[in-house]
Amino acid sequence: MLSKAQNKHIRSLTQQKFRNEYRQFIAEGHKIALEWLQSAWHLKTIVATENWINKYRDDIRRHPEAELIVASESEIATVSSLQAPGEVLVVAVLPDSAPISDKISWCIALDGIQDPGNMGTIIRIADWFGISDLVCSPGCVDVYNPKVVQSAMGGHLRVRIHHRDLVNFLPSLNIPIYAAVLGGTDVYEVGRPASGVLVIGNESRGISTEVADIASHLVTIPRKGGAESLNAGVSAGILCALMLPR
Amino acid sequence: MLSKAQNKHIRSLTQQKFRNEYRQFIAEGHKIALEWLQSAWHLKTIVATENWINKYRDDIRRHPEAELIVASESEIATVSSLQAPGEVLVVAVLPDSAPISDKISWCIALDGIQDPGNMGTIIRIADWFGISDLVCSPGCVDVYNPKVVQSAMGGHLRVRIHHRDLVNFLPSLNIPIYAAVLGGTDVYEVGRPASGVLVIGNESRGISTEVADIASHLVTIPRKGGAESLNAGVSAGILCALMLPR
Repeated sequence: MLSKAQNKHIRSLTQQKFRNEYRQFIAEGHKIALEWLQSAWHLKTIVATENWINKYRDDIRRHPEAELIVASESEIATVSSLQAPGEVLVVAVLPDSAPISDKISWCIALDGIQDPGNMGTIIRIADWFGISDLVCSPGCVDVYNPKVVQSAMGGHLRVRIHHRDLVNFLPSLNIPIYAAVLGGTDVYEVGRPASGVLVIGNESRGISTEVADIASHLVTIPRKGGAESLNAGVSAGILCALMLPR
Repeated sequence: MLSKAQNKHIRSLTQQKFRNEYRQFIAEGHKIALEWLQSAWHLKTIVATENWINKYRDDIRRHPEAELIVASESEIATVSSLQAPGEVLVVAVLPDSAPISDKISWCIALDGIQDPGNMGTIIRIADWFGISDLVCSPGCVDVYNPKVVQSAMGGHLRVRIHHRDLVNFLPSLNIPIYAAVLGGTDVYEVGRPASGVLVIGNESRGISTEVADIASHLVTIPRKGGAESLNAGVSAGILCALMLPR
């Protein structure tokens, strides 16, 4: 059973202030919670129904560091951010910031991505294309926001996420910087460079002028129709498919 | 001022049942409402602040068929589906179903897309790539859902949307059917065919077996990393970028 204090604590983690204070975040729903259980990630608490615990006992045993709380589906619903709450929720420990290898070949940088769905989608894209480092500017949405965790589909487990001031940091990687813009060089002219940073800008303002100034190339997906722009996540996916080495 | 009856009527249009009954839907927020005003689409009502009306008088004049209601921002907020309600909302008339040209070169078909954000994103992708026809299976989310209209960013104005049973209809187009799956033929082997239907499946179940059976090719975006799949909208964007004629 979830005590009143446990319930309050877990609900507090939907707010960035408390995630930072307690250094914890939530991963929930069968598919996503199971990904965390099957990883070596440090977990704080596992909340699940008796039925779920019986089915996934071996996965739960991999996390002796975590407190296991048996709860009913309706109890889990009281702390869930999901429209259709599931039978399991894990509270995971926020990772320490990791260094970035100076021998990186490709990475993605985000310049003020604000929408949690876009952020999660881009983490999932990095994960699909095997990009192991994602650099977020200070203006980005918190990557441990429950909606980000949900739409990243476990991508946090395989993509290292860094927080840096892009203008100071990106040039130190010593690889070309490709910033996605409207009205830049046709991405097909750029080809498939061996290394680079792909920078995706804010949903409405795009790439900031400061980041455009340090970019080696301003690249654009050629447009055939009437839409003014593409969604940030879709742009990131298309640019990865067109630019990364095959 | 919005009367009680007008308020109730507009709010009812957030539900598909009433959209179908009244043959009307909502397009709101400055950018999207303005796109509708600048089109020849049949509008029923324009609700806007006095300030907005003064700025966009010429665009409003293009729609003498529409009733113009002056309302305050707080009144608009009471009928808005947006987190940050704007100064304008239009009620537009649902279009009659359009025939599909039998000389189509490329179109997108959706096999049970359920998430309104994905549906809107795919309409926006079709609009960007100049694909003028989108075919939705009966199991898809309503394309006039306010969240779909929001994320399509005016794509409804340039992409004709059809509703058909895919298994019966797609073969009648007499062009190759490319269904996006996991574990199919590498999309790079398919190249850029002159014509085709790109079919995107449901977010969790993928392409239905019935649709897979009528597909000419099952295509896959090659994966380099650990993610199990890509988001449906992102997959649609990548496949358009890799398969459509340049």
